[in-house]
Amino acid sequence: MAPDQEHVRRQGPIRLSRKALRTAEPAISRLIEMALRHEGLISLAPGLVDEETLPVAETLAACHEVLADAHLGRRALQYGTTQGLPELRELLAAHLEQLDRTSGATQQYDPARIVVGTGSQQLLYLIAQTLLDPDDIVLTTAPDYFVYVATLESAGAELWGVPMDEHGVIPEALDELLRYLDRQGDLWRVKFLYCVSYYHNPTGVCTAAERRAAILETLERWSRYGPILLLEDAAYRELGEDDVPPAPSFVSYDDSNQRVILCQTFSKPFAPGLKCGYAYLPEDLVEPILREKSNHDFGSANLVQYLIATLLRSGAYHRQAALLRRQYSQKRRRLIGALERYCDEYQVTLRWTKPSGGLYVWLIAPPELDTRSAAGLFHRCVANGVLYVPGEYCFLGIRALQPDTPLGSARNTLRLAYGHCPTEQLEEGVRRLVASIAEELAHASSQQAHGSS
Amino acid sequence: MAPDQEHVRRQGPIRLSRKALRTAEPAISRLIEMALRHEGLISLAPGLVDEETLPVAETLAACHEVLADAHLGRRALQYGTTQGLPELRELLAAHLEQLDRTSGATQQYDPARIVVGTGSQQLLYLIAQTLLDPDDIVLTTAPDYFVYVATLESAGAELWGVPMDEHGVIPEALDELLRYLDRQGDLWRVKFLYCVSYYHNPTGVCTAAERRAAILETLERWSRYGPILLLEDAAYRELGEDDVPPAPSFVSYDDSNQRVILCQTFSKPFAPGLKCGYAYLPEDLVEPILREKSNHDFGSANLVQYLIATLLRSGAYHRQAALLRRQYSQKRRRLIGALERYCDEYQVTLRWTKPSGGLYVWLIAPPELDTRSAAGLFHRCVANGVLYVPGEYCFLGIRALQPDTPLGSARNTLRLAYGHCPTEQLEEGVRRLVASIAEELAHASSQQAHGSS
Repeated sequence: MAPDQEHVRRQGPIRLSRKALRTAEPAISRLIEMALRHEGLISLAPGLVDEETLPVAETLAACHEVLADAHLGRRALQYGTTQGLPELRELLAAHLEQLDRTSGATQQYDPARIVVGTGSQQLLYLIAQTLLDPDDIVLTTAPDYFVYVATLESAGAELWGVPMDEHGVIPEALDELLRYLDRQGDLWRVKFLYCVSYYHNPTGVCTAAERRAAILETLERWSRYGPILLLEDAAYRELGEDDVPPAPSFVSYDDSNQRVILCQTFSKPFAPGLKCGYAYLPEDLVEPILREKSNHDFGSANLVQYLIATLLRSGAYHRQAALLRRQYSQKRRRLIGALERYCDEYQVTLRWTKPSGGLYVWLIAPPELDTRSAAGLFHRCVANGVLYVPGEYCFLGIRALQPDTPLGSARNTLRLAYGHCPTEQLEEGVRRLVASIAEELAHASSQQAHGSS
Repeated sequence: MAPDQEHVRRQGPIRLSRKALRTAEPAISRLIEMALRHEGLISLAPGLVDEETLPVAETLAACHEVLADAHLGRRALQYGTTQGLPELRELLAAHLEQLDRTSGATQQYDPARIVVGTGSQQLLYLIAQTLLDPDDIVLTTAPDYFVYVATLESAGAELWGVPMDEHGVIPEALDELLRYLDRQGDLWRVKFLYCVSYYHNPTGVCTAAERRAAILETLERWSRYGPILLLEDAAYRELGEDDVPPAPSFVSYDDSNQRVILCQTFSKPFAPGLKCGYAYLPEDLVEPILREKSNHDFGSANLVQYLIATLLRSGAYHRQAALLRRQYSQKRRRLIGALERYCDEYQVTLRWTKPSGGLYVWLIAPPELDTRSAAGLFHRCVANGVLYVPGEYCFLGIRALQPDTPLGSARNTLRLAYGHCPTEQLEEGVRRLVASIAEELAHASSQQAHGSS
């Protein structure tokens, strides 16, 4: 080999794995970064939580309880276990039972089937990694949560979206999709259905109690090549209105006890900075997930687990979650009230979901309004000082039998998040949005008039 | 299809990914679990840290500093970034510079190339995942740290061990191995050399300053198909004797600035329960690692990062690390003193490494003594109330040109850990071990005498 060639090779780039090459930067991060450069922008985009209500004093009290006792403190500062603190898992099982009870179900939860992780995202990741080979199929909702969609794509999965309406996943649409995949000879590739079942990201919709058995039954009916599991992401479950209890978990509807994976988190109902989530797993998945997690980190931060256990035991956690429910309820009413008022004022006709919890409202614009990031409305909004998430990001990478769903399409929808935005900015944010829409519609119709003249 | 068949399929097991099927339970966990059932056992096996010296008061003070300030507290309880808290990364860069300075080097560290993770294990995992496809080759030391070996095996890598002596990795042996792999047509598969470079797990050996440039130069010389990187795991770096400064990091020897990955942790020199580690990466690896980490968890616990930053800034971290250095130095002297005394008393000839830091001493027994878990000595030790890690676990899964190394083989070595074992049990633990060895050697020679009679 000529020395020159050798030189070139030595300077060659670091060789990445196929997985790394498949792992793309989420398109949305660039968009948000770009948009945030505009000063004075009111952001209704990020799915962050309200900052003012973060439980600083409660967390400090828990630190005291754990660390003022030298013996307890030393245990919290030592290595923990891969699965998670046993006392915490006991408390979590009781907590899950309590949540189902509020919704009228009497499901029992086994602490031995709970795994604690670094946020629920880590558990969602481990589940994807433990179940998926490249070219496996995952059913998602359409639209869906773009962060996990990116994780599934990075695992090499092919995604197919099931349309939703205001009651959640439509069982008949799920059946139709599975029938189609079977006809195509692809049914054997289907591993699970991913579903944000409470106050769905991005639509805010809950999957209704009446549909849950039918959804599981449909998955079971098409489980000819092996179980098609249901992965229930219940991140927003504890952020609902107190007087509108949502359905019990899918776990309660799973007679086999082997088909549902449930993920929950303390990030939304308490504080993201603790980064603690947990999964309730079919018995057969516990060991495989633990083997994988043992390679990832052999256990999430032990101190954090002691803090969460303390907060659950003292009731401080429940008080904080109740406070957040009231707080987000007010913000949501404020946002929806502003939508109604400004649509009226600017004479704009829009549809939106009416969530009874969570952090998102989903807007469905008339078909002639293009909400995508490359279109006029998005840039007009940024210029007018308001940021939203174009619905297209929630459909990206998801195949579908039809592009249109009862909750709109990638072209005419957008997500509004009211978690992070300060209450006093919500109304003005909505005003700017609706004003921009009115301007854009006027502009489009003048263009059309001009075009046809 | 007959209904019966369909029934069978419906009851079928959950279908795991190839990665999950490749991820084995570490053999050692069963062994330790089994052994720990014996009451009164003195365990010199686990690589845990000393529990009595865990910094409970220091951590509580840091919690106060972060959470007694409502504004700061709210930031700590909000989501952080995937890469890690900018203030913390600044402090870590300065910390790495300081560590190199102690060893006489003036390397500069760029905070933009640091990624904070859930312990250094998460970073080691992310690095494996970002660099390795199944059937790639990783060079390890022989013996090596069995937990990361398992992670590499789960990534599908083929492992080849480079022998060490009491000065660390032997550059000539590394060269010989790479020459062999090249002759076999396998050089293109080699991605990196993994090296616990300070107070190596399991041998306690440091890779000497004089060897570091030669090791990097050897890797560079064989980088014909793309860079062969060096992954430096410096977990024990800050646990050395103050008067015997170890070599500067491999980063200081890397003129290209693109060949060395350095991982460090707060688990060993401060507290495992905070689960915080960090990596210093070649510039080209930062983005790929962040994309992967963003799928794993979009950032490790933010509160923990604020605590660590506070501890670094106040000097509490440095005081604790200095305390641990003294504490482990005493324990190490105690252990080695006991080895000398009881070898004398029981008239047993053993070799062992003489580490100036870390948590491990490596014992090399005469060739006729089988230290493996299935052999007589191990069971005799458990019966006599002492537990060690058989050297075989540190060679498992690692291919080698020769089974014997200057530091023994899988058959006649064992690892002693003095981190977790209370000081007052160390001597008795060593007495039981040496007594068991003496018994086993006597038993073997009587068996031999019996066999030959």
